[in-house]
Amino acid sequence: MKRVALVAAGMTRFGVRQATYRELIQEAGKACFDSNKNITPKDVDSFILSSVFPERSAFQSHVACLGAESLGIRPRKVFGRVENMCGSGIVGIRYAYTAILAGLTDMVMVVGAEKMTGPVPAESALNMMLGIDTAWEACYGMAAPPMFALTAQAHAMKYGTTEEQLSAVSVKNHNHSKNNPYARFQTGATLEQVMCSRVIAAPLRLFHCSSLSDGACAVILASEDRARELTDKPIYITGTAQSAYGYATANFYKDLSHWPALKEAAQNAYTMAGIGPDDVDFAEVHDCFAIAEIIAYEELGFCEKGEGGKFAEAGMSDYGGKVVVNPRGGLIGCGHPLGATGVAHAVEIFWQMRGEAGPRQVPKADIALSHVNSGPGEHHIVIYEKGF
Amino acid sequence: MKRVALVAAGMTRFGVRQATYRELIQEAGKACFDSNKNITPKDVDSFILSSVFPERSAFQSHVACLGAESLGIRPRKVFGRVENMCGSGIVGIRYAYTAILAGLTDMVMVVGAEKMTGPVPAESALNMMLGIDTAWEACYGMAAPPMFALTAQAHAMKYGTTEEQLSAVSVKNHNHSKNNPYARFQTGATLEQVMCSRVIAAPLRLFHCSSLSDGACAVILASEDRARELTDKPIYITGTAQSAYGYATANFYKDLSHWPALKEAAQNAYTMAGIGPDDVDFAEVHDCFAIAEIIAYEELGFCEKGEGGKFAEAGMSDYGGKVVVNPRGGLIGCGHPLGATGVAHAVEIFWQMRGEAGPRQVPKADIALSHVNSGPGEHHIVIYEKGF
Repeated sequence: MKRVALVAAGMTRFGVRQATYRELIQEAGKACFDSNKNITPKDVDSFILSSVFPERSAFQSHVACLGAESLGIRPRKVFGRVENMCGSGIVGIRYAYTAILAGLTDMVMVVGAEKMTGPVPAESALNMMLGIDTAWEACYGMAAPPMFALTAQAHAMKYGTTEEQLSAVSVKNHNHSKNNPYARFQTGATLEQVMCSRVIAAPLRLFHCSSLSDGACAVILASEDRARELTDKPIYITGTAQSAYGYATANFYKDLSHWPALKEAAQNAYTMAGIGPDDVDFAEVHDCFAIAEIIAYEELGFCEKGEGGKFAEAGMSDYGGKVVVNPRGGLIGCGHPLGATGVAHAVEIFWQMRGEAGPRQVPKADIALSHVNSGPGEHHIVIYEKGF
Repeated sequence: MKRVALVAAGMTRFGVRQATYRELIQEAGKACFDSNKNITPKDVDSFILSSVFPERSAFQSHVACLGAESLGIRPRKVFGRVENMCGSGIVGIRYAYTAILAGLTDMVMVVGAEKMTGPVPAESALNMMLGIDTAWEACYGMAAPPMFALTAQAHAMKYGTTEEQLSAVSVKNHNHSKNNPYARFQTGATLEQVMCSRVIAAPLRLFHCSSLSDGACAVILASEDRARELTDKPIYITGTAQSAYGYATANFYKDLSHWPALKEAAQNAYTMAGIGPDDVDFAEVHDCFAIAEIIAYEELGFCEKGEGGKFAEAGMSDYGGKVVVNPRGGLIGCGHPLGATGVAHAVEIFWQMRGEAGPRQVPKADIALSHVNSGPGEHHIVIYEKGF
């Protein structure tokens, strides 16, 4: 199978940004082009924008076209905008990968962008737009925090996962993002701070939750042949998979503490890459809520089922542990501009594999896994390997 | 190059529908499965939803997941939602085609859906969501009708295109949709009716415009090998291309009467399919406004540049002419539920090539072209050939 390489990457700082949707895209795009001086906007013939609901949160539509124009790109091979809620960014990378593999283009820019702190946060809070079925579940009060709170309760009941264990994830990720100039939160956090923060949906407290943020990220993918002309430090995508078990909370599984779709996607991606979980040096994992990272450890095979809480508490997902999870600080430390998050994973992997991650550098950074979920039922994985 | 086949297709009637977004998807999905009894929802491992702004117009988000679940499909290979304004449906078909070509899956369902006649038409009318840059153009009054009115004025100035010629397109398409039980408008139209309808944006009158409508369409694409197992009447995609010259009206070209992006996309698609414009038996063309169909004749090579008005008036795009354009009635006759339109093209081509189009059957229906634009600057083409 032909290989596809990551050849350029850049991003904005995440947070409450005094910038428009367009300006976020421009800032990330410029940073991406700055990372590889062999590529100009005129070279890019294909463009994918990942974004969840700019129509509501940024009052812009037709955003693939807006994004391309804002970056001076004239798409003439493959272009479009993709959306899969929180998974939008990684699905954009998969679309670009697919188009290169199919031979329709040999270079694609993927931008993930979201402007979330505009005039509509109250509307967001009403769940009109947060990925829950408005007719069947949101209208009865379901939203992301209670959904993941129920998940945490199920995991605690079945496996004895404690609030201290949940909090260990948040402490780790906040302490990682302290070393990341692109993160929203850069002051770190203590166990006491996390455990004394206010309850959002029991047992989840404020510091167990990621924050809706503004931000954008950009990467360029190229075919292996093209990549050789553009860089001597290619990073290859060697495996990728998706799996979804449904939408409605009630439908997709009987036991919220098990995520079979993630397990299936992980197995398929590992098989495709010819590796196993023990080969992964570091992972960008979707910690939309702390419980999600704990369950991800288990379903990704980093530890046994039910042992995720202990794994976090023992520092096994931190520097010096078994696998460094979320070295950039994850969604909890960096903020979560929905469409940008999956692309942010790729940007961090780009920096880590090139040894450009500064004080948060993972010592051995040869194989990395990016996992994003869109709710507990839908999972997306891309595996990257250093090609130099 | 491997081939990809259309193996199943179905749709809802377009119009003001007393049905929710979910119900429209279910109605189209059922019709699609009914069209090929060799395929059940359990066989479908990949799912693409094309939809423009359900977040605003249908108060639903995370719609790829909603759509799959509503049809009993569990995606485990490739899935996502794509959006490219009016081009969303055809871009969804391209994504499915690309994924099959890349070998990531061998069968994909593509659903295009839009619920537009809900409680927000006033908001729509304010152009907050209609594909115009809200910061740079919509805020100064630009919207789709004036944009295409300016285009019509430019074409009239340069080539002498008349209101009668614009109206000939509308009369043809309304008379075609009279024979289409899935069309919104089924009463036909006379030249007098069209030319006496009220002015929307001069010279465009009501009957020169397509109408925002509810509707959904579904098709299933499969690899050539898989298609042979599923049907003895495969229809192959033999060419496809995209091209975009920009977003802002002011940016993408100096002369609104020329659409170089469409010309480029058409040439690339013809080259890929190994055909020329004279080989096309019938075409589904994006008549969002009558002027768009006239310019499409020219850029697609059905007539010389500037001759599009005369081509329509002489009946060259009607039954018995050079190429039957919009036998189902086009967007003007059928209505335009944005994300569904590009998929509707594929459904009509499926029926026409199988000889199932009833009173609107095109006598020779071996090669068909589907063209969708997203504004005047962005164009998408898929060419289909009968494989039996």
